[in-house]
Amino acid sequence: MSVSKGLENVIIKATRLTYIDGERGILRYGGYDIEDLVNNSSFEEVAYLMLYGKLPNSLELRKVKERIQDFEIPENVIHILEELPKDADAIAMMETAFSSLSSFYNAYWIGPRERALEVIGKAATIVANIYRIKEGMPTRIPEPSESYAKSFLKAIFSDVSDMEIKAMNASLILYADHEVPASTTADLIVASTLSDMYSCVAAALSALKGPLHGGAAEEAFKQFVEIGDPSNVEAWFNKVIAEKKRLMGFGHRVYKTYDPRSRIFKKLAKELKSERGGKYLEIAEKLEEVGTRHFAEKKIFPNTDFYSGIVFYSIGFPIYMFTPLFALSRTLGWLAHAIEYVEDDYGMIRPRALYVGSEKRSF
Amino acid sequence: MSVSKGLENVIIKATRLTYIDGERGILRYGGYDIEDLVNNSSFEEVAYLMLYGKLPNSLELRKVKERIQDFEIPENVIHILEELPKDADAIAMMETAFSSLSSFYNAYWIGPRERALEVIGKAATIVANIYRIKEGMPTRIPEPSESYAKSFLKAIFSDVSDMEIKAMNASLILYADHEVPASTTADLIVASTLSDMYSCVAAALSALKGPLHGGAAEEAFKQFVEIGDPSNVEAWFNKVIAEKKRLMGFGHRVYKTYDPRSRIFKKLAKELKSERGGKYLEIAEKLEEVGTRHFAEKKIFPNTDFYSGIVFYSIGFPIYMFTPLFALSRTLGWLAHAIEYVEDDYGMIRPRALYVGSEKRSF
Ligand SMILES: CC(C)(COP(=O)(O)OP(=O)(O)OC[C@H]1O[C@@H](n2cnc3c(N)ncnc32)[C@H](O)[C@@H]1OP(=O)(O)O)[C@@H](O)C(=O)NCCC(=O)NCCS
Ligand SMILES: CC(C)(COP(=O)(O)OP(=O)(O)OC[C@H]1O[C@@H](n2cnc3c(N)ncnc32)[C@H](O)[C@@H]1OP(=O)(O)O)[C@@H](O)C(=O)NCCC(=O)NCCS
Repeated sequence: MSVSKGLENVIIKATRLTYIDGERGILRYGGYDIEDLVNNSSFEEVAYLMLYGKLPNSLELRKVKERIQDFEIPENVIHILEELPKDADAIAMMETAFSSLSSFYNAYWIGPRERALEVIGKAATIVANIYRIKEGMPTRIPEPSESYAKSFLKAIFSDVSDMEIKAMNASLILYADHEVPASTTADLIVASTLSDMYSCVAAALSALKGPLHGGAAEEAFKQFVEIGDPSNVEAWFNKVIAEKKRLMGFGHRVYKTYDPRSRIFKKLAKELKSERGGKYLEIAEKLEEVGTRHFAEKKIFPNTDFYSGIVFYSIGFPIYMFTPLFALSRTLGWLAHAIEYVEDDYGMIRPRALYVGSEKRSF
Repeated sequence: MSVSKGLENVIIKATRLTYIDGERGILRYGGYDIEDLVNNSSFEEVAYLMLYGKLPNSLELRKVKERIQDFEIPENVIHILEELPKDADAIAMMETAFSSLSSFYNAYWIGPRERALEVIGKAATIVANIYRIKEGMPTRIPEPSESYAKSFLKAIFSDVSDMEIKAMNASLILYADHEVPASTTADLIVASTLSDMYSCVAAALSALKGPLHGGAAEEAFKQFVEIGDPSNVEAWFNKVIAEKKRLMGFGHRVYKTYDPRSRIFKKLAKELKSERGGKYLEIAEKLEEVGTRHFAEKKIFPNTDFYSGIVFYSIGFPIYMFTPLFALSRTLGWLAHAIEYVEDDYGMIRPRALYVGSEKRSF
């Protein structure tokens, strides 16, 4: 009778979604290498792959694009977001919005794939309007377009370039799933009671809100801001090491080599080459060089959150939007795992606790 | 590498809170038999016991009563409840309210016991106003009184008898904790990322909302309504058996004898002897007799949800409030387990999934 601390090495389910090989730096969704998907497909195609187990033909893709771009949400949910404090944590706002959507829609487990696509559509509306409300802009429902990435960006920025849409599409794919971290585990527990999909996502967001889980991309980027200039990198890094602090955006529990997603985010950051992000890219590249040299024998490399912030910032997002953008993309993974859990019939989750308290006593 | 289905027999943590012996029908909080606590203590004393590991002295009790009766919540949270559809699921409403409170308060892990008492105070305000909003009554913040149970009931019904307060106090104690069912597990995952306490409770509610988890007391009571008259019990029961349906409020995964809580709820139901509940009590007692006789060798007995609905109904609550009343009480258990988890430093929860999907393929 021993405690499985953090449920480490406990296998909670089988999955056909995501394969990770941390030694060789491989990440695949449904058998396709992540690079292959980013280079050749849209987020909609990946959504179809995750939910249906294969890539869509052109008719199927058209249908997915239509359903995933049902961006309507009840006005009440916008009002609810407006009732929250202006300085509320963006993930907490998202959590409240999803939780409230569970009262408006019956997103249960009949036709779950169509339901999941609708939930992902509404997620775009929520995330776009968290930005707009925080920036004091009028709220706005996204307009369907050729792609989910484009519709989402246009709801936020109005003017967007093809390169920005490409980068947005890529990051939606890159963050879409990563097996069963804490947020996905919370999502599975809620699914295991046959609660609704909005509640599953809300619970995942509750977990993601925790400082140990979400927020690494924001923390990594804040380092670049703090460094301020490429010439300060070395001194700044030496101080971090001297103070035995952790370099954010470096290291990974599973990857003991370069995280394949990090390589792609870096390439996108370079392609975007924005005035806004340029200086930070320079700083990050320098920091990567210094960091990988220093950590070489410990096998600590940039993780996915090291360059993603530069991509988001270059597109035009403020730092507080990095974690909501992650969550927008991960909504797909949360729902795909939840559907797998329910359909493979694993049953309600009910671990045990080991009693170590007081012997019987009387009042 | 095998899947731990439903995390059955996986031990997620040690606990000093609750001890269950299913064979002998024993339930203890902090070493005290549940009967002992119900007979001799207030919910506030049990809250102190769960959070601080011992019963309070009179000064400590006074402080707990003060803190747990800080019923204030931001007006915005009331507005948020009012934005939800009138026919929303009461647990979904509670989930949204808790989630939104996480944007107003920083209920993190510094001084967590005081924070937990405040959260429990606000839970009473939320649950009372879910009732008031659903019934079309003006919203109302509870007024502190000699007891939490009384303040809560008065916020709902204005007029309440001593016996009703006694029954409310007892049911708050009876449902306060039961180790780590799905809702508590969701709560632990959120706590494991060091997210805030309101988000922990919100995630637990997301799980409780599932038809496999919450709602048994409501289902049990609806049976009594369907039966309609004691003379119909036998025929109704035979039909349930013939159709191989489950008798709700009977059977338990852990208790293989009479659930000790059920015995107490039955006694309270008799003591309340209300006009409103009387007929249903008669039906329930008859059904218990027929059911225990039929299930004798399978060791299936009334569980805690069999008589609790009659108690709630006799106090004056409509059926849709039964699960929120359970959740109000369980908020204590959720928070006490979350604090234990964080303080005992089990770390972030991160199980694994076993990949069984497609081999590598190319786009
Ligand atoms: C993600 C992380 C927790 C994974 O770590 P892990 O594989 O569990 O390894 P540990 O935390 O046990 O660390 C192993 C060793 O590497 C060091 N290490 C790991 N990541 C480090 C980092 N980012 N900076 C400095 N040292 C690091 C640890 O100090 C430890 O050194 P020691 O053996 O001399 O004590 C860790 O790399 C980290 O904290 N990274 C920074 C936060 C971050 O970017 N998180 C996002 C992850 S997607
Ligand atoms: C709570 C419950 C799931 C626990 O069950 P369990 O210990 O896991 O046992 P199982 O579901 O495997 O059932 C074991 C046997 O008892 C029977 N059984 C258990 N509870 C029963 C019930 N309430 N009515 C009819 N038969 C019941 C099962 O049909 C099964 O019979 P079988 O062996 O002939 O197939 C179950 O008792 C139940 O569904 N109860 C009704 C719902 C309820 O009141 N839930 C609230 C729990 S607090």
